Amino acid sequence: MSEGSFFRSRWVPAPDHVTEVADGTLPRGFRAAGGACGVKADGARDIGLIVSDAAQTTSAARFSRSGAQSAPVLHTRHETKLWQIRAVVVNSGNANAATGQRGLEDAATMAATAAAVAGVDVHQVAVASTGVIGVPLPIERISHGITALGPDLRAAGATDFAEAIRTTDAFPKQVTLDVALEAGTVRLCVQAKGAGMISPNFATLLVFVQTDAVLEADEADLLLSVCTKRSFDRISVDGQLSTSDTIVLQASGASGVRIEPRTADERVFGEALDAALRQVALLVARDGEGARRVGRILVRGGDQHLADRVAHAVADSPLVKTALYGADPNWGRIIQAVGAALPGAAPLKVDISIEDIVVCVNGAYVEHDGGALAEAVRREEVEYEVVLPGEGAEAERYFSDLGHEYVTINAEYTT
Amino acid sequence: MSEGSFFRSRWVPAPDHVTEVADGTLPRGFRAAGGACGVKADGARDIGLIVSDAAQTTSAARFSRSGAQSAPVLHTRHETKLWQIRAVVVNSGNANAATGQRGLEDAATMAATAAAVAGVDVHQVAVASTGVIGVPLPIERISHGITALGPDLRAAGATDFAEAIRTTDAFPKQVTLDVALEAGTVRLCVQAKGAGMISPNFATLLVFVQTDAVLEADEADLLLSVCTKRSFDRISVDGQLSTSDTIVLQASGASGVRIEPRTADERVFGEALDAALRQVALLVARDGEGARRVGRILVRGGDQHLADRVAHAVADSPLVKTALYGADPNWGRIIQAVGAALPGAAPLKVDISIEDIVVCVNGAYVEHDGGALAEAVRREEVEYEVVLPGEGAEAERYFSDLGHEYVTINAEYTT
Repeated sequence: MSEGSFFRSRWVPAPDHVTEVADGTLPRGFRAAGGACGVKADGARDIGLIVSDAAQTTSAARFSRSGAQSAPVLHTRHETKLWQIRAVVVNSGNANAATGQRGLEDAATMAATAAAVAGVDVHQVAVASTGVIGVPLPIERISHGITALGPDLRAAGATDFAEAIRTTDAFPKQVTLDVALEAGTVRLCVQAKGAGMISPNFATLLVFVQTDAVLEADEADLLLSVCTKRSFDRISVDGQLSTSDTIVLQASGASGVRIEPRTADERVFGEALDAALRQVALLVARDGEGARRVGRILVRGGDQHLADRVAHAVADSPLVKTALYGADPNWGRIIQAVGAALPGAAPLKVDISIEDIVVCVNGAYVEHDGGALAEAVRREEVEYEVVLPGEGAEAERYFSDLGHEYVTINAEYTT
Repeated sequence: MSEGSFFRSRWVPAPDHVTEVADGTLPRGFRAAGGACGVKADGARDIGLIVSDAAQTTSAARFSRSGAQSAPVLHTRHETKLWQIRAVVVNSGNANAATGQRGLEDAATMAATAAAVAGVDVHQVAVASTGVIGVPLPIERISHGITALGPDLRAAGATDFAEAIRTTDAFPKQVTLDVALEAGTVRLCVQAKGAGMISPNFATLLVFVQTDAVLEADEADLLLSVCTKRSFDRISVDGQLSTSDTIVLQASGASGVRIEPRTADERVFGEALDAALRQVALLVARDGEGARRVGRILVRGGDQHLADRVAHAVADSPLVKTALYGADPNWGRIIQAVGAALPGAAPLKVDISIEDIVVCVNGAYVEHDGGALAEAVRREEVEYEVVLPGEGAEAERYFSDLGHEYVTINAEYTT
């Protein structure tokens, strides 16, 4: 990896064979645009479109598992050929969630309008919306806005698109990477929005990935599945599942560079995608309500179910999160969260270390260097490790802290 | 119920046949005391003892289900005859949790010292500790403190005891009630501490109940079980389970008034205990980090498992809690929490009302009086109702809001 500013976390080493591209041009075959259509009252960009001009485009997608999925998620899951997504249309400012039949009709209208603008079949359009829940879309403005994007679609339009899907994210989350494979170089772009459920109204993780590699749809689905599990499935801002989370990977094939399953090229491309999504996920956790710090909890031992439960309990604990915010070395909150996740397991033989400083062995405190610990928890990234009895399992979660900014954003800027 | 200040919540109507007693004298047979032994650095009371002088005393107890149970919880569960607890000894300022073998020995020392002072068998002593986790007890100070309480034990000592178990509770939580049964009048006293995991170090719910009724141990256990499920099992300050939660009910029998199973007297006594514990539980939620408001979520319909899950999800949601704090009528956060609790259930046919104002039917918004809703959520108690498809189940949770005071207490007063 050449020098660049994207892979900032020590938990995501920059992969080999990958070069960061500064100008942000989309992979071959893609065009994008972003504009303002008046959903946001302040006139900021609120409508975006990404189009692949390649007929052979393959894709894969993942959605929120919420029982209260938004209308665009329901529409895209049921009406869109998820393995052939040519266009992605997104509005911010209104989530089109809890809007009933009218919401489904509005999502269909967005898809039809985007299909006409992009020149693709309506079943090849994915729709996403993010913003206030329970308010009908201003669909006429949005339709006009989508139509107006047509002349603006361009290879350099990713930044405008990324701006249009942003809500109150403190900083943009996008990257353009070139990945040098044996078969040739392919480009990989990611645009994302999300900073937790960061305001009373804006509450979603949206991630869009494009590449010009030639990728079978099955292979795209597998790669997206594995990399999502290792990135976005491992972050916790506030433990709250959105109605609208959507991740779409599109491969235009326009580079002519084919990625075959079970080859060195697949491994290199997969590592690049994995690193990019993990770094974006960390940026989302980092953005969480102006968070000061990001924590990583690593749980080893036990069976997988228990390890996952412990990792979730620590990452979602408001006591652990406020301690992280306050740079409080109080490890009692870690064992409290572990104990809460394992009811009936007392006496609990658990080891705990923070930044490699061992504070607890077999469930009981051990002497340690309090000064070094206090210093360690003041850093921007803090690592906690919990070792359960038994071998084999491993679970990992990244989480933002819980501070006054979270309360202010979520309580004081009321609707 | 005569006039009194205890039953303050509209969700706990004062029961019939119950009179609040102002002077706080314990039920016949009981004596209590509270003092300072230097666990708390500021010299505040930190050691308390309750003793029943009646040999026929019966009892029942409940404990935290945490896998990281504290040493006093482990000691009491394994060494104490839970149906014959004569004495309860409690220190605040140190939880004696995550302290290994030494912690168990210290808890045994507390029990032995209290047994000597109270003149009861060591296996009839329950031990509880609350405070910092992972630091060994200053056991010599505590032993001296327990011994020093002996001369102070008295029928009017409940207030001193309640003071000694308090940590940073904003207000005391105790009540003395006379319950008029057909067989005669019995007294019922409750002392509790707890305001969520309210500070970096102090983190426990402790509840002690005394009565002079004659109660079989089985009957005491049944009553405590039912009333705990309807009170303390239904509150959420921050969704965090402590290492040390302990509830003890003792019946001295000194009134000579026997409560027989399946009689009108049992019903009246049970209603009094139920109302007292529910009101104390609401006080704990209300105290939660200087909370402004308490919410009640009532879920109807569906099966019991789903109803419970939805009630927990709403009560533990930081987004719902910050909205409650900010008096934000944004009901999108309720449906977000409901959807998160019911993955895969989309499209979700759910009805939502806030303070009887219907905002969502069949999963979609309905027109409602926004001004009336904004007014309703400004009250001290706010009620949310969620109706799931299907009939039969009902779940209820009380929860405090999440505001700046929670962050300040948990992040800024660092150890």
